[in-house]
Amino acid sequence: MHLSEITHPNQLHGLSIRQLQQIARQIRDKHLQTVAATGGHLGPGLGVVELTLGLYQTLDLDRDKVIWDVGHQAYPHKLITGRYSNFHTLRQKDGVAGYLKRCESKFDHFGAGHASTSISAALGMALARDLKGEKFKAVAVIGDGALTGGMALEAINHAGHLPKTNLLVVLNDNEMSISPNVGAIPRYLNKMRLSAPVQFIKDNFEEQFKHIPFVGESLSPELGRIKEGMKRLAVPKVGAVFEELGFTYIGPVDGHNIEELIATFQQAHQIPGPVLVHVSTVKGKGYELAEQDQVGYHAQNPFNLTTGKAIPSSKPKPPAYAKVFAHTLVKLAEQNPKIIGITAAMATGTGLDKLQAKLPNQYIDVGIAEQHAVTLAAGLASEGMRPVAAIYSTFLQRAYDQIIHDVCIQNLPVFFCLDRAGIVGADGPTHQGMYDIAYLRCIPNMVLMAPKDEAELQRMIVTGVNYTKGAIAMRFPRGNGHGVPLMEEGWEPLEIGKGEILRTGDDVLLVSYGTMVYPSMQAAEILSEHGIEATVVNARFAKPLDTELIVPLAQKIGRVVTLEEGCVMGGFGSAVAEALLDADVVVPVKRIGIPDILVDHATPDESKAELGLTSRQIAERVLQAYFQLQPSAVG
Amino acid sequence: MHLSEITHPNQLHGLSIRQLQQIARQIRDKHLQTVAATGGHLGPGLGVVELTLGLYQTLDLDRDKVIWDVGHQAYPHKLITGRYSNFHTLRQKDGVAGYLKRCESKFDHFGAGHASTSISAALGMALARDLKGEKFKAVAVIGDGALTGGMALEAINHAGHLPKTNLLVVLNDNEMSISPNVGAIPRYLNKMRLSAPVQFIKDNFEEQFKHIPFVGESLSPELGRIKEGMKRLAVPKVGAVFEELGFTYIGPVDGHNIEELIATFQQAHQIPGPVLVHVSTVKGKGYELAEQDQVGYHAQNPFNLTTGKAIPSSKPKPPAYAKVFAHTLVKLAEQNPKIIGITAAMATGTGLDKLQAKLPNQYIDVGIAEQHAVTLAAGLASEGMRPVAAIYSTFLQRAYDQIIHDVCIQNLPVFFCLDRAGIVGADGPTHQGMYDIAYLRCIPNMVLMAPKDEAELQRMIVTGVNYTKGAIAMRFPRGNGHGVPLMEEGWEPLEIGKGEILRTGDDVLLVSYGTMVYPSMQAAEILSEHGIEATVVNARFAKPLDTELIVPLAQKIGRVVTLEEGCVMGGFGSAVAEALLDADVVVPVKRIGIPDILVDHATPDESKAELGLTSRQIAERVLQAYFQLQPSAVG
Repeated sequence: MHLSEITHPNQLHGLSIRQLQQIARQIRDKHLQTVAATGGHLGPGLGVVELTLGLYQTLDLDRDKVIWDVGHQAYPHKLITGRYSNFHTLRQKDGVAGYLKRCESKFDHFGAGHASTSISAALGMALARDLKGEKFKAVAVIGDGALTGGMALEAINHAGHLPKTNLLVVLNDNEMSISPNVGAIPRYLNKMRLSAPVQFIKDNFEEQFKHIPFVGESLSPELGRIKEGMKRLAVPKVGAVFEELGFTYIGPVDGHNIEELIATFQQAHQIPGPVLVHVSTVKGKGYELAEQDQVGYHAQNPFNLTTGKAIPSSKPKPPAYAKVFAHTLVKLAEQNPKIIGITAAMATGTGLDKLQAKLPNQYIDVGIAEQHAVTLAAGLASEGMRPVAAIYSTFLQRAYDQIIHDVCIQNLPVFFCLDRAGIVGADGPTHQGMYDIAYLRCIPNMVLMAPKDEAELQRMIVTGVNYTKGAIAMRFPRGNGHGVPLMEEGWEPLEIGKGEILRTGDDVLLVSYGTMVYPSMQAAEILSEHGIEATVVNARFAKPLDTELIVPLAQKIGRVVTLEEGCVMGGFGSAVAEALLDADVVVPVKRIGIPDILVDHATPDESKAELGLTSRQIAERVLQAYFQLQPSAVG
Repeated sequence: MHLSEITHPNQLHGLSIRQLQQIARQIRDKHLQTVAATGGHLGPGLGVVELTLGLYQTLDLDRDKVIWDVGHQAYPHKLITGRYSNFHTLRQKDGVAGYLKRCESKFDHFGAGHASTSISAALGMALARDLKGEKFKAVAVIGDGALTGGMALEAINHAGHLPKTNLLVVLNDNEMSISPNVGAIPRYLNKMRLSAPVQFIKDNFEEQFKHIPFVGESLSPELGRIKEGMKRLAVPKVGAVFEELGFTYIGPVDGHNIEELIATFQQAHQIPGPVLVHVSTVKGKGYELAEQDQVGYHAQNPFNLTTGKAIPSSKPKPPAYAKVFAHTLVKLAEQNPKIIGITAAMATGTGLDKLQAKLPNQYIDVGIAEQHAVTLAAGLASEGMRPVAAIYSTFLQRAYDQIIHDVCIQNLPVFFCLDRAGIVGADGPTHQGMYDIAYLRCIPNMVLMAPKDEAELQRMIVTGVNYTKGAIAMRFPRGNGHGVPLMEEGWEPLEIGKGEILRTGDDVLLVSYGTMVYPSMQAAEILSEHGIEATVVNARFAKPLDTELIVPLAQKIGRVVTLEEGCVMGGFGSAVAEALLDADVVVPVKRIGIPDILVDHATPDESKAELGLTSRQIAERVLQAYFQLQPSAVG
């Protein structure tokens, strides 16, 4: 049987180990070739090929539920659940998504994109199952990195208290999140990986077996039968933390030995209550370059499979915002030892690895733990440090209460730097940085800003670092800057709450925020070709809004358009509308931004075109709204 | 020395155990008398009197930092840090706050009101200390209930990985959060409480001591000296989970024996790295009624100290919203076994204890774990159940990402019931339910509603339970209803997104949401006395907004006022303003609600008066805004 013939994972049932190993090779080949061509997550999927096949041999995917944490480790799952033939469209518009989605396949039982959710979801399904009197298995596959996320631990606390609720947690331990893991839990897991439970169990199997809750009593007549399969059942000492928390711990198991995996999972299914199977895997397994550089090959742009090198883009690009951010922050941190960069397991993504390399004492990686990151920052700020919490817009959602409760209510000066704000592209709806303006704007004591380009980003970093009156947040996009000149030092801070006029015209006022400033300027040029002259304001701050600048202009011009790369419900445009109404300036305001929908995966340019956010579309929308011109007029 | 003379905790240094016991009695007396008179948290503070005194004997509060988790256990702290003389003003407007506040005292090193934040904050301070080369101690005092919150576990994961960072975590284990704790962690702690480490250590002290990281090596010459004080140093087996996570575990210690506490804390301060001292306390200690009914006496309205009974209010009140909510939900759950009520350790507060009593299978308490609660609900919903997540507005902030990522992106039908939405009164800024309209409104696939009174609450509960297209959230206030007739069954669901006109008039349109509907009606009557006739709309839904109803009225009447008990930045009023602008209806809109400030503790009526939300103030504001009448005109 060839992988291409498999559209249902149950087709794998009954295959020999050798046949499964062949399928494993085919999955790896397809996985590698596809990601090399399309870009995407490489290491996570390659590490779980055997785990997926071994687990699915013991499940009936028509009934049983598997929840893959984060979802980026689920490419092998996709390849055996009906998406082989479309897999070349991975992460492309209308193609196969890079994460699991319930709407994409009936085998994607629960979607994800953020870490640490799978145990909660699986437990919810298990409880529903028992209430309905059904019989299926509920399985969560979670990485060791994701296990440091608080909600995973909340779920373990709950599940471990429910001895009658069958639940299987598969711990995919590759010793990594995106970067090497930090924290006491990963260190503990690593200690277990290095232990030798098989030997120990062989020596006194019966004795150990009795200590496992329920099994010892209820299954004792069958002891002999399952004895062999239980070889990998850990001694309590090895899995003590999980055992104390109510789980039966089994492991560690070699995650690349299909035979061992099948035997282990079969036995795990026999044990009532919550069970944790600890599987040791190698991230990037089977692709030597990825095994050697697990951080670099976690996810990739299109690359050459032989050399492993990225395929250079056709033309040189300006520096990425993230790169400018990191470079500037390091420069400032060199001058100010109070600056502390904080990341939640995104050292490379945020660029803080540069800070780590240069000034390790001023760098903190807390693991996948955004809540802790923010309150830790509040603690640092209360002692006079200048914490810079570098967290993607989408992940900062995890720390919402901490922003309100620990930072803003106490008015502590934490500088939030939200990378990936706005449209993120191929990662899709779970990762869109759409909501931050709306969810941060309603919090008292919060300053919000967004740069129009990478040079202004530098000035805003200085602004944020220098601002001591309370919390301040800066959002900036994924991707590259505009190629404007950058400074190596001597950046001047901006005045808080002050925007700038970039262009004047009497016909319409475009009030623009962050990434929409350049498209607004281009739209103004197009409008000018149609005889419409626009004033363009770069607001710089969404809060406090520069009402002194904007209100009189709006009153004078009488037609307002707001532009933002964020949700229009409650966002920047609403801030402008609110300010005008509060000032008794009753003029029309058209808000251009992301409407109240989820934004699917595609390239950022494709998404923006679909949302009507290109400069030409902006011009069209302005003409339509205020000048009764049809879109076709814009050519 | 009498408690009244103590304004600085260092004054206690050097007192004898007997003198401290006297102070402890005085603290208990003052605590009891004050809470009996003012209302407030009773059990938590009574349980930590000796813990506070014992800990503070070993600290210099001018330098050392103590972070009290949640803060409601810190009344004894307040009584010895300069707030004795004002303590009778507890939780009253401009009086002593019910929680810790950095702005209230220099000894309140970090404020709180929500649980599980203290270890993160203390670790932040400890890291800052080491970077600055300072020497103070950083101590977090956290309850066993709060330890089930994910962010506390994230902090433990981080701290346990930092062997060079001195940090003391005091686990105040009273076997309770507000209700008895659930979960594997509390069960584990309980197991330890029942162990007898003292005996064991006496037997082979030297041997055990060697196993403690760092101490064994670095302090071995001093072994003899500290041996006695270390009696309670647990055997590794007792604190295995914490030891495996990198903490030195000491305990359990009798939390009401000052001498033992002092000795233990003194020794704990000698141990480098993260240390956890496990203290067994009794919630409500010293007040027999509170010891016997720990749930009932967690917090109290004013009561008679001798009988323990609440002092009846002068006139009978209509039923509380929470009570109507619970009663109605139970009725519906009896008819529909798919309804599952979920609480995050707030069984009594949410009223779900009624569901637990009647239908225990349809009730889930996950502990202090809002994140897990919401994704668990998503898991239940994915299997066809009707999860009802009953979480206060302020605590739902903890699960913001889960609402977006697990519920709304997947469009799963979870029914969120947000009690304590709006002004909460004596609990103050950490508990105000101010932000939910703004933070939920920007999420696609979310329906938002709020009832005008307790009868509409019943209809909205049916509406929410029947709504299967996606997420739906209902907000309702703390406190009592309006005394309108209630139905025992047969409630009719509301049409999603449809409001109602309650009163018609041509001069001004009042668009009101939830609790502001009745004050709006009263304001309309006052306006009528001044010859101004208002149309009053009960919007019922903030999302989807009833634009078919509101837009034509706004266009016709030309003067709009929106009213909400929530932040006006991005809230309900913004929704109305946005809808009008989108429909090209350019009319003035005045938004009445909570401005962009923190709202301090006071009675709800006092806060509302300060915010201009009484019916008379509303009338005044309408007259001022649209009819050039001065406030004094309203009399």
